[in-house]
Amino acid sequence: MSSEYGKNIKISIFGESHGKAIGVSIDGIPAGEEIDMDTLLSFMARRAPGRSKLATKRCESDTPVFLSGLTNGITNGFPICAIIENSNAHSSDYAGFEITPRPSHADYVASLRYNGFADMRGSGHFSGRLTASLCIAGGIAKQILAKQNIFVGAHISSICNVKDSSFPLYPTSELFNEIASKEIAVIDDEKGEKMRAVIEQAASECDSVGGTVECAVVGFPASIGSPMFDGIENRLALALFGIPAVKGLEFGSGFSASETKGSQNNDAFEVQNGKVVTKTNNNGGIIGGISNGMPITLRVAFKPTPSIAKKQETVNLETLENTTISIGGRHDPCIVLRAVAVVEAVVASVMLDLLQER
Amino acid sequence: MSSEYGKNIKISIFGESHGKAIGVSIDGIPAGEEIDMDTLLSFMARRAPGRSKLATKRCESDTPVFLSGLTNGITNGFPICAIIENSNAHSSDYAGFEITPRPSHADYVASLRYNGFADMRGSGHFSGRLTASLCIAGGIAKQILAKQNIFVGAHISSICNVKDSSFPLYPTSELFNEIASKEIAVIDDEKGEKMRAVIEQAASECDSVGGTVECAVVGFPASIGSPMFDGIENRLALALFGIPAVKGLEFGSGFSASETKGSQNNDAFEVQNGKVVTKTNNNGGIIGGISNGMPITLRVAFKPTPSIAKKQETVNLETLENTTISIGGRHDPCIVLRAVAVVEAVVASVMLDLLQER
Amino acid sequence: MSSEYGKNIKISIFGESHGKAIGVSIDGIPAGEEIDMDTLLSFMARRAPGRSKLATKRCESDTPVFLSGLTNGITNGFPICAIIENSNAHSSDYAGFEITPRPSHADYVASLRYNGFADMRGSGHFSGRLTASLCIAGGIAKQILAKQNIFVGAHISSICNVKDSSFPLYPTSELFNEIASKEIAVIDDEKGEKMRAVIEQAASECDSVGGTVECAVVGFPASIGSPMFDGIENRLALALFGIPAVKGLEFGSGFSASETKGSQNNDAFEVQNGKVVTKTNNNGGIIGGISNGMPITLRVAFKPTPSIAKKQETVNLETLENTTISIGGRHDPCIVLRAVAVVEAVVASVMLDLLQER
Amino acid sequence: MSSEYGKNIKISIFGESHGKAIGVSIDGIPAGEEIDMDTLLSFMARRAPGRSKLATKRCESDTPVFLSGLTNGITNGFPICAIIENSNAHSSDYAGFEITPRPSHADYVASLRYNGFADMRGSGHFSGRLTASLCIAGGIAKQILAKQNIFVGAHISSICNVKDSSFPLYPTSELFNEIASKEIAVIDDEKGEKMRAVIEQAASECDSVGGTVECAVVGFPASIGSPMFDGIENRLALALFGIPAVKGLEFGSGFSASETKGSQNNDAFEVQNGKVVTKTNNNGGIIGGISNGMPITLRVAFKPTPSIAKKQETVNLETLENTTISIGGRHDPCIVLRAVAVVEAVVASVMLDLLQER
Repeated sequence: MSSEYGKNIKISIFGESHGKAIGVSIDGIPAGEEIDMDTLLSFMARRAPGRSKLATKRCESDTPVFLSGLTNGITNGFPICAIIENSNAHSSDYAGFEITPRPSHADYVASLRYNGFADMRGSGHFSGRLTASLCIAGGIAKQILAKQNIFVGAHISSICNVKDSSFPLYPTSELFNEIASKEIAVIDDEKGEKMRAVIEQAASECDSVGGTVECAVVGFPASIGSPMFDGIENRLALALFGIPAVKGLEFGSGFSASETKGSQNNDAFEVQNGKVVTKTNNNGGIIGGISNGMPITLRVAFKPTPSIAKKQETVNLETLENTTISIGGRHDPCIVLRAVAVVEAVVASVMLDLLQER
Repeated sequence: MSSEYGKNIKISIFGESHGKAIGVSIDGIPAGEEIDMDTLLSFMARRAPGRSKLATKRCESDTPVFLSGLTNGITNGFPICAIIENSNAHSSDYAGFEITPRPSHADYVASLRYNGFADMRGSGHFSGRLTASLCIAGGIAKQILAKQNIFVGAHISSICNVKDSSFPLYPTSELFNEIASKEIAVIDDEKGEKMRAVIEQAASECDSVGGTVECAVVGFPASIGSPMFDGIENRLALALFGIPAVKGLEFGSGFSASETKGSQNNDAFEVQNGKVVTKTNNNGGIIGGISNGMPITLRVAFKPTPSIAKKQETVNLETLENTTISIGGRHDPCIVLRAVAVVEAVVASVMLDLLQER
Repeated sequence: MSSEYGKNIKISIFGESHGKAIGVSIDGIPAGEEIDMDTLLSFMARRAPGRSKLATKRCESDTPVFLSGLTNGITNGFPICAIIENSNAHSSDYAGFEITPRPSHADYVASLRYNGFADMRGSGHFSGRLTASLCIAGGIAKQILAKQNIFVGAHISSICNVKDSSFPLYPTSELFNEIASKEIAVIDDEKGEKMRAVIEQAASECDSVGGTVECAVVGFPASIGSPMFDGIENRLALALFGIPAVKGLEFGSGFSASETKGSQNNDAFEVQNGKVVTKTNNNGGIIGGISNGMPITLRVAFKPTPSIAKKQETVNLETLENTTISIGGRHDPCIVLRAVAVVEAVVASVMLDLLQER
Repeated sequence: MSSEYGKNIKISIFGESHGKAIGVSIDGIPAGEEIDMDTLLSFMARRAPGRSKLATKRCESDTPVFLSGLTNGITNGFPICAIIENSNAHSSDYAGFEITPRPSHADYVASLRYNGFADMRGSGHFSGRLTASLCIAGGIAKQILAKQNIFVGAHISSICNVKDSSFPLYPTSELFNEIASKEIAVIDDEKGEKMRAVIEQAASECDSVGGTVECAVVGFPASIGSPMFDGIENRLALALFGIPAVKGLEFGSGFSASETKGSQNNDAFEVQNGKVVTKTNNNGGIIGGISNGMPITLRVAFKPTPSIAKKQETVNLETLENTTISIGGRHDPCIVLRAVAVVEAVVASVMLDLLQER
């Protein structure tokens, strides 16, 4: 009972990587919102493989079919359900992993948790494939937010030790769009090319690399959120750690704030054009769980794709003997490329949920 | 509606820093658990000020009074309510902050969110004082977990740029106890003294410093948790971002995983004494939201205490003019010292909650 | 954000009467449960129209397609999603109701609540058609409960003023099966024929009739549930009032208890075969929200089908003038006939949810 | 984990009948609401014993102490916690019930559910005493609603077989106030005196009687609520079945609707002073879970007080032998008298919660 998040807008994910279909049910989207399908499909294409030579060779056509909640392309107030049929699954690639689990994959814990009944072909419900469902929900949320001049954007802030520039203090929707149009979603293309080299090198070594994604929300009104356990950070955190491979999260200056002094990290107030703003944004737009009107900024850390072709040490769960494994199949040497859109999707859905409390 | 977390065990926090009392209601603790009051008070003393010269000069006697849920010191199955009366509050120290908000404090967002009605003396419900309530709940949880040989421990992993050693692959409860007994909760005392110097230096400059806390849970059984949004990471994240000043969170190798290759970061399996373990623990004991039987490890980043005596830039919310502010009162130059117990408390309460799903 | 219920097992309903499909997502069913499709289809057939001449002439083929959560007919631990495609919808039958709302239907409130964007053809998401989704979830729950010797059964306890016999103190699964096999699900067939006459008479007058359903759960273990707001009654009530047209609910002797004395209504204890039981079951197996080991019994009141062909008074929402309306289309003169299975479905799903807390 | 209800406004109840204190935490009340203490105390006095010779001889001084959430009598936006200290408890009256459980009381299920650790003196957390906490929350809710011209009132609609008149189609706040001022809260005083006679007769026979309470909400705006499982009926039902001894609930014409035809029960629309209303209110102001602007009406059934002095059959749980019991102590021969305010309290709190979704 876990594949759901959200309070005013509940997003429930279902499906397994090699099952009949994956999908999402979204309950709580207000009625009367027109959803542009082309915009949604473009957004989803940013996550889908096939866009870049750097991604998996799997060919997934991520075209959602809407079963409910939309009438003539306009939300009708009832739960939205959309599904994507699975195809192009090579289930044979996954045979045997229930006995010799892949390191850092869910095979082992799933065998314990589900008594061997989990359908773990393609990692089952744990698969990154499920993030396509998140992009349906998030793509819809992004469109609704944009009509209220709230924009969500993200870029790859690092791959291994190659770091992109950071977002400026006030990112713009134009910048977001520009980044989104790139094969490698960075601000500084030179860094993007270095990232490409790092990824290609890892791929050539049958290895993979991790990275980070920086995300920002601009235009979000001040005074939304709550103290303690239902604040913006809590709700974003709950949802973002649901993206497979996410192992870290920070808001504003985050971990680096821990290395500074109060006089450096505190965000001084000033009046600008009659509006109260802060000169810096080390709090990432959130104080005490509540928005202060500055851009909301966060950074998410992704571990390297656990699926690598290199030989790895594992155990045989039946004989309890040590053994080795080599993972075939078609995997991303770096999931961060495709995760940028997923981070945007999750953040957008949480912000839209929070906005209902205004 | 936000001062609550937990699913099977619900923990609701109430109170303001300068109100009549703070407290906690804990619903869902199983009946029949004996709670040792001395152990609870010792635990709470680790958070309370007055223990170290490095902490605030405020004198808070954090002695909880139990109103319900305990009969003869044993949980009776009904909600536990415990309160701590406030005293020693110098409310005059806080006059004026509703007009000239303190940078990086909740004054400004609270004025917007609560239309000026929030009782922000001592930061009101946003105050670090509220974490005493968390320690009541967490101290109880720690005792119940310990009876099942599940131990939760933490240490200061860094203050500013001074870093303590990390926990070993398998921390022990003895190590946890040893650290807990120290004035500065570190593994390596030499680093502890360097931290002391950094804090004293900051205090002498009317400034403050941030830091990080590493926490580990040992003995937690494998196969607990769920994929996607109700996993161990999601639930810990939701709760931990409720601790004031927390701006970052990572599990296992966390952000540094993003700088590695899959072949480095993957946790190879091996059989040890007939048990499946991993040779490393970069996943922090959690895969796909589910425990794998290895210690659960995480690190939390705290920003520097925003209350500093140094002059700071702010605005007058009535005249909308820029101005400056100097914060008096008695503040911690580094809240991390006292936050170690709070992190343990929150983690213990979440783990006990998860354990009910076994 | 409302089409969901359940705590350990979450059941989310989606779809509109005349949309592409209706369906359900069920999150939290344990792995390893074999679901017999024939049994499920037989159960669903009890709700579907076409079984009795007394029901609507609409022909709905209620055959669910499972998209996820089942592997080779066995639950795999992941969310189950099942859909039923809509067909045989005569949308033209519903034209105009957004302007001249049908009395006691959701047309008027929906026009306000969804600003005119709700797809109210066939009553949209408010339609009784949606209960087919509930029967998927409930049919699965019934099968899992039955393997643990917990049985859920129901009968029509009244139609208008014709009352069936009540369940005996200890109903059996054989009795449940016998009732379920009848065209009119009653204990006393003579009463069933009187009900038939009442329904036919109402139909011939272009009118409809209401009725009540009694439901019982046998074999449910004692000591499950909780006091106050999360007890068995609270959770059943929340879910049962989600069935369209339900306007009343009572447990055990219910409303008639209010007409008795304590000495009459109290359930005296006695020991029977070494087991503590009660001589009567006026509490319906639930005390203080907790099961006492006796059969759980409840009764649900359904209002008469609001769709009647008789001319009715309504208003024109555009001109704000009084007018009249005659509802065409193919409606049930008495939904209670088909609601018996729906009550069983909802009760079974809640009991299975509660059972996870054992 | 059960002593809580509410979605936007969470109400958590704690305390045992003979513990140190009972109380309530209320999270989510908007800031800036002035609470009149005299009005609150008058409301609570309607529930407290001592007001009528017909009630228990226990003397409870139900004066809440507010620990948080109020500053100078105005809500400050943070959780409100209020407690009432227990006194005048005669615990010896309850000795032995853990061995020979009282019929229709929670003694037996509590012994199973809490493994003998529950503090069941005075029925512990199951006690009607806990409803004083509900009246704190509900009394506050009533005041906030009244400022928005939403009024909640109730009366005893029956005691045993003596029935009061029903509320008119449009009850007024004046009528509510008039009823509230009476010793026996009825519309028709003649019926009130007959009820008095029935109660006195039962008391003289060492017996008790049940009854029903009718409650209405006037002024509640149309279009609030949601279909299926989060509608007004679902949320009221979840909360109302939390009141001890409630065994039935109906909205509008409720169970009697099940005996009518659609042409009788349907609420015809008409325009009155430019406003859409219904000529009758058999739906109790709620259609499809959503308010239609008519008064919201419901009726709650209370079983007779299970505590009676008459000798009753029970069992000895240690020897598993049949035995008898006579319950001493000071009990209400009819809890319905004092339950009227509790029903109002619970209904008011749910309506205020719903109103936040506007």
